[in-house]
Amino acid sequence: MLMDLFSGTFARGSTAPEVSAAGWLAAMLDVEAALAVAQAGLGLMPPEAAAAIEDACAPERYDVGKLAELAGPAGNPVIPLVAALREQVPPEHRKHVHRGATSQDVNDTAAMLVARRALAPLIADLDAIRDACAALADAHRRTVMAGRTVGQQAVPVTFGLKAAGWLTALGRDRAALVGLRLPVQYGGAAGTLSALGGRGHEVIPRLAAELDLEEPVLPWHTDRTPVAELACALGMTCGTLAKIATDVKLLAQTEVAEAAEPAAPGRGASSAMPHKRNPVGAMSALACAQRVPGLVASVLDGMAQEHERAAGPWQAEWETLGDLLRLTGSAASWMREVLEGLRVDPERMRANLELTGGLPMAEHVVAALGGGPDARRTVDAACAAAVERGVPLREALIEENVALTPEEIDAALDPAGYLGSAEVFIDRALAAHHHDATGA
Amino acid sequence: MLMDLFSGTFARGSTAPEVSAAGWLAAMLDVEAALAVAQAGLGLMPPEAAAAIEDACAPERYDVGKLAELAGPAGNPVIPLVAALREQVPPEHRKHVHRGATSQDVNDTAAMLVARRALAPLIADLDAIRDACAALADAHRRTVMAGRTVGQQAVPVTFGLKAAGWLTALGRDRAALVGLRLPVQYGGAAGTLSALGGRGHEVIPRLAAELDLEEPVLPWHTDRTPVAELACALGMTCGTLAKIATDVKLLAQTEVAEAAEPAAPGRGASSAMPHKRNPVGAMSALACAQRVPGLVASVLDGMAQEHERAAGPWQAEWETLGDLLRLTGSAASWMREVLEGLRVDPERMRANLELTGGLPMAEHVVAALGGGPDARRTVDAACAAAVERGVPLREALIEENVALTPEEIDAALDPAGYLGSAEVFIDRALAAHHHDATGA
Amino acid sequence: MLMDLFSGTFARGSTAPEVSAAGWLAAMLDVEAALAVAQAGLGLMPPEAAAAIEDACAPERYDVGKLAELAGPAGNPVIPLVAALREQVPPEHRKHVHRGATSQDVNDTAAMLVARRALAPLIADLDAIRDACAALADAHRRTVMAGRTVGQQAVPVTFGLKAAGWLTALGRDRAALVGLRLPVQYGGAAGTLSALGGRGHEVIPRLAAELDLEEPVLPWHTDRTPVAELACALGMTCGTLAKIATDVKLLAQTEVAEAAEPAAPGRGASSAMPHKRNPVGAMSALACAQRVPGLVASVLDGMAQEHERAAGPWQAEWETLGDLLRLTGSAASWMREVLEGLRVDPERMRANLELTGGLPMAEHVVAALGGGPDARRTVDAACAAAVERGVPLREALIEENVALTPEEIDAALDPAGYLGSAEVFIDRALAAHHHDATGA
Amino acid sequence: MLMDLFSGTFARGSTAPEVSAAGWLAAMLDVEAALAVAQAGLGLMPPEAAAAIEDACAPERYDVGKLAELAGPAGNPVIPLVAALREQVPPEHRKHVHRGATSQDVNDTAAMLVARRALAPLIADLDAIRDACAALADAHRRTVMAGRTVGQQAVPVTFGLKAAGWLTALGRDRAALVGLRLPVQYGGAAGTLSALGGRGHEVIPRLAAELDLEEPVLPWHTDRTPVAELACALGMTCGTLAKIATDVKLLAQTEVAEAAEPAAPGRGASSAMPHKRNPVGAMSALACAQRVPGLVASVLDGMAQEHERAAGPWQAEWETLGDLLRLTGSAASWMREVLEGLRVDPERMRANLELTGGLPMAEHVVAALGGGPDARRTVDAACAAAVERGVPLREALIEENVALTPEEIDAALDPAGYLGSAEVFIDRALAAHHHDATGA
Repeated sequence: MLMDLFSGTFARGSTAPEVSAAGWLAAMLDVEAALAVAQAGLGLMPPEAAAAIEDACAPERYDVGKLAELAGPAGNPVIPLVAALREQVPPEHRKHVHRGATSQDVNDTAAMLVARRALAPLIADLDAIRDACAALADAHRRTVMAGRTVGQQAVPVTFGLKAAGWLTALGRDRAALVGLRLPVQYGGAAGTLSALGGRGHEVIPRLAAELDLEEPVLPWHTDRTPVAELACALGMTCGTLAKIATDVKLLAQTEVAEAAEPAAPGRGASSAMPHKRNPVGAMSALACAQRVPGLVASVLDGMAQEHERAAGPWQAEWETLGDLLRLTGSAASWMREVLEGLRVDPERMRANLELTGGLPMAEHVVAALGGGPDARRTVDAACAAAVERGVPLREALIEENVALTPEEIDAALDPAGYLGSAEVFIDRALAAHHHDATGA
Repeated sequence: MLMDLFSGTFARGSTAPEVSAAGWLAAMLDVEAALAVAQAGLGLMPPEAAAAIEDACAPERYDVGKLAELAGPAGNPVIPLVAALREQVPPEHRKHVHRGATSQDVNDTAAMLVARRALAPLIADLDAIRDACAALADAHRRTVMAGRTVGQQAVPVTFGLKAAGWLTALGRDRAALVGLRLPVQYGGAAGTLSALGGRGHEVIPRLAAELDLEEPVLPWHTDRTPVAELACALGMTCGTLAKIATDVKLLAQTEVAEAAEPAAPGRGASSAMPHKRNPVGAMSALACAQRVPGLVASVLDGMAQEHERAAGPWQAEWETLGDLLRLTGSAASWMREVLEGLRVDPERMRANLELTGGLPMAEHVVAALGGGPDARRTVDAACAAAVERGVPLREALIEENVALTPEEIDAALDPAGYLGSAEVFIDRALAAHHHDATGA
Repeated sequence: MLMDLFSGTFARGSTAPEVSAAGWLAAMLDVEAALAVAQAGLGLMPPEAAAAIEDACAPERYDVGKLAELAGPAGNPVIPLVAALREQVPPEHRKHVHRGATSQDVNDTAAMLVARRALAPLIADLDAIRDACAALADAHRRTVMAGRTVGQQAVPVTFGLKAAGWLTALGRDRAALVGLRLPVQYGGAAGTLSALGGRGHEVIPRLAAELDLEEPVLPWHTDRTPVAELACALGMTCGTLAKIATDVKLLAQTEVAEAAEPAAPGRGASSAMPHKRNPVGAMSALACAQRVPGLVASVLDGMAQEHERAAGPWQAEWETLGDLLRLTGSAASWMREVLEGLRVDPERMRANLELTGGLPMAEHVVAALGGGPDARRTVDAACAAAVERGVPLREALIEENVALTPEEIDAALDPAGYLGSAEVFIDRALAAHHHDATGA
Repeated sequence: MLMDLFSGTFARGSTAPEVSAAGWLAAMLDVEAALAVAQAGLGLMPPEAAAAIEDACAPERYDVGKLAELAGPAGNPVIPLVAALREQVPPEHRKHVHRGATSQDVNDTAAMLVARRALAPLIADLDAIRDACAALADAHRRTVMAGRTVGQQAVPVTFGLKAAGWLTALGRDRAALVGLRLPVQYGGAAGTLSALGGRGHEVIPRLAAELDLEEPVLPWHTDRTPVAELACALGMTCGTLAKIATDVKLLAQTEVAEAAEPAAPGRGASSAMPHKRNPVGAMSALACAQRVPGLVASVLDGMAQEHERAAGPWQAEWETLGDLLRLTGSAASWMREVLEGLRVDPERMRANLELTGGLPMAEHVVAALGGGPDARRTVDAACAAAVERGVPLREALIEENVALTPEEIDAALDPAGYLGSAEVFIDRALAAHHHDATGA
């Protein structure tokens, strides 16, 4: 279900449905059911009660719109949901529904379930992006292009090295996402589980096992580190996706034209200009990512939660967490399409590198002259002369009488001869990726 | 229509519908219609074409879900909307649809329309809150309570003065919201309106008049100051609402209990604790407000838009702006309910002020002693003695032999005699409010 | 005094000194002196006492380092400053020092003074930038260049129009800065001015007049709208400066090279690459601006201040406000240098516009064909053919047998003939600027 | 050295000096020296050159103010530093200075060194806080107090459980900080280390070993995940510190008075009110923490760095990173003082819990009645009656004829009998802490 008019941009891919109202409702009901099963396993409720509760936890029995409406004055949606759930359970079992739990237990555990379900397609998209980057790194390990620093052509690099850098950053993001704790929450009204006498803590590992979530040290109603870690890992992932999207956007500029996004009918068209093919994937990923740091800040800022359960900052997490997952998932989905179909133009890369008549090779000439301040001064002068008179650096070097033969000058000016450890770095990145992919 | 399971908290009141998909669609169609009318008025298209376009701009003819889906690859929802609109117009008039406009023209102008429509109920709620504050300020102008600084009881204030402070801050927020520019956008592909020859600029004032929006100096595709001003005004408003909600939350603490939110069935109940009455309005307003500063930061950060139209930061505004309006509107709606029904307990206020046996009056005793470091040292010693021995300050002052008669001590310890200019300030705040309300 | 190793980038220009320790100390002492003078004027202290206090308020008498150290445990620097100030005043006048005031009164009023002093050079730099933009807008009103949207060449614009857009946005920022309220703060311990009996409010207008600040409706200890408005105006200004810097950075790219920053020895040099000339001004302004939205969010988030005076969010404003002023001032200082010395290359602009063989003129050809979907389909096909076969659009149009004569095609492909209302917009922007400059 | 008038609040403890100008300069020189040593070890420069360079890398030889000034136009401080360093090295060795490196290599590696040095005292303070929390958790494992949710008294907890929650959250923060990657940066102009032929990558592990930093997969000039992870870990740590500070601030309220900060002369005094003892530590920690989420957002937002090295977002990290370390370090230093000296008042805790005549025990009465909706309805009615008539819950229960004997009612109303798994949770938290402390 599409949530708003802009969901084509901000809710692409398979994470968005998990954070929808339907996704949350299903997760909340899964928690209530698992709680009953866990308690029945400990003899804390009759098996029939647990079975009846499980049976009642079918999402189609509940009206999302009505729950949402009642949730406002109640303070959260779990309160009306528990009331509705009790209605669905035979009277004799009703007292076992939601036993010992507070609303936040269900809402927080559901949030962790929603996160796990939303992270799965996100991580799959990241893996596909990483595979695409690895393939680009390998295929273009000798595709020479201008390295660009501060917006200016610097020394040559290869497109493979650029892709290897993307790959490495994404590997780190993936590790952060995969390494997240996603604990169940079960503490009752104020974190003591007092309603269950002294046995409440026994429920926690069983609940965790039922839901395939982690067991916490103790209830974390106002210890929001699990949420903060999740928000930060998503924020960092979006940061890397935005870095890649930025590179693609810049490479796709009309005047650079070294890479282009895959074309498709209706994709990136302009309503006013027939000739335009916009890099709509990079643009959309950037739009998603632009919104994420502020959301992470909101989560971090909201960690100062009062006493046993908070009034305001906790509630503020609900939609924020959903937005973080949705936007990061959407950004990943966009960049997967971009990178799996990226069109790379090695000829244009080389042509652009020659635009300035060899200036990006100036550093190499300094090295060929033995390095050091004197060599640099000489080359500086030649560069200045080349720029001023509009001639290639080669010509200026000869006129400046540098202490190199024409052959040495040609060698010094050949980008392919000035790539340093680029291939070693690519191999290291591919090896690390292979290691990740095959399991560490 | 409720958007998600949490909309009861975050989409309360009448601003939320304006930023829904339906709200945006209606605004976009209003812009397309107004554009046709404006151009027809200048003879730039036949009146029949404009009439046909206006006729076709009926929201019920369009499928939001389909538009949202097509908007993803297209880059924005205006592209598929214009295509669908053309289908709804007789073939002979189709070329007049969306004439000279770029997608951003329609999206931006619709954003300003959405903002104006969403601001109306928000400002109405603020006005109701301000009236409630003014009534509280007047009614409680002599209701003595503890002034609290850094969480500690300081010197006495009145509840009326507190309410007057809320009123004054809200007056400033209202002025910022009412003073916002909301300009139309019409610049064509790159801000020159080239598709209309030299006459495009003539369309702008007519378009502005049609939609009751402002005429800009020139197209503002990448000058986002109108959006930034809107975001900032909303951010500031939420900040004030959060200030008031914080005060209410703190006053409603069990141990303070000087104010309480209005009660209603199902409002602020706990799923685990039968006796609890949570300050759900303040809590919900704080939850809304918690999310806003990060959204404002996102808008400000996105102002660095490239060249004539941007790839990423512009698109990022769409949902962010909607969230800002919705969350501020929801916070205002919550606080209106809170303040219109606030229960104030003057007895408890006075009782709390006496909790520490007169310590909040210590400053007054310093003054009664003539002020200055010596007087302060004396009173410091009496305060220390009172705290150490658990006796009222009065007793300690007598034992310290301060240079005051018992009558003078009693006068110095009477909170009602130490309110300084509180009433003058209340009167000033009420006068300023009256001045605003009757028009300046 | 340079504050850190990075102050060359982040503390350029004349705002930084105003927010230094020396700037704050001077402002705080100015407030204490003005308070004495204001009270003496009302007969609330002897003129000799006020004279003695004024005399003691000479910054050179105070040790910033020691004050800073004592300020930690005290909670703010005003407490040790007042103690030190008393030491500097003859014993008989000491009780008049800081009379009726709380630390926050002095700190807040000093903050407003610091802001006013820091804003003066900032606004002067903005005015210089605006003059530079106006000159560029006028000089380049017919300098044709590619309009760029979503990173792609769109239709032609002029560099003058681009500069006029910068000018207009800056005009709005300036208006926000110039229109700021900067009120004095004087409320005493809890906002009642109780220490002055019923006369405290009479001090406020005199204090405001002394310091050339505004008189508030009432004390605003926990109404932070004045600070929020200041932060927002700075945030918006930085956003516009970042927009301009982004354009300059993109225009300065090696492959675009349409504009360059002024050169100077040691400016923008690379430590590794002799040929590089980095756009160090735009880069530094962007670095400053990048940091600002998070600071604005911090101020907005901190508005939820408890009761009469807050514990935490108020204190958090001090350095944040200084950073906001310093970074915005530094960004303005950088961009002034950039824009006053900007090198524009009209030839390269025209050459870049021809890079794609006329595609940016496609929209004009659609218009020449009468507009509408059919015309667009025809031109789409010609564009596709031109791209596919690598020929100019002119050739493709002829081969597609479009219904235009070669002369009509040439006219349609001339960028100078397709500038729409660009000059009108420039004139409007210049008129608005002139109007501002001569006073409205 | 104190940096500004507010450094007493924001630069407490031992992290601040590490992020000062002196700290950065020392780190940069350490990097230059280590680079020489690493290269000499590989035979890439003569040992004498490395020795001469090491010798020259003594911070006292350099003028921070001058470097800072030159850094502005140069673009970063490494450029003038390298020039100055060359001056300090005998001419014959100068060409070996900074060999193969770009400014960012030195700046980034220095940033990692600064971070490691600043993190050491921060982690030590966190460990001291954790020990203090563990001691409080153990000592107060049976100190009954009101659990508070949404600002209202809920069911009883123990102060030990509250402290155990603090401890557990801090354990997670510590793990994140200790687990940070802090890699060296060495990539040369564009990440290929081309200036060293094919041997540059061999330098990296040696450089890492010299500086006790990590070896990255490849240069990370525009892969900012290491910086993002650092920022996020600091942000999360501040979030937890703010949570604890919030609890302390709320417990220290005059009306609650269950905990107080340690007293000391000049600490937390009010300039206007002699009796006040402000919780200056919690207040200052909150002030520090308030500023952090916006800084984290700035770092995350700045991850979208262009191509091989960025213009703006990279530079923006420098001061931001320093602020993050300084503010988190200062917050930790404050909270260490607070927690090591926290005064807990168990009697007041119990007295407050009895304020409402047993209402926090209502949930227990529901359980004693067998739980379920019916029992709850009964207790709801008794609670309502108790509140309405101002009598204790015990009396209301008897009057409502609940199905419990007076002894059963007394047992149900005893807070010490309704602590559920609180002690088990405390033990788990202590065990986890012990496990951390003894090494896992």
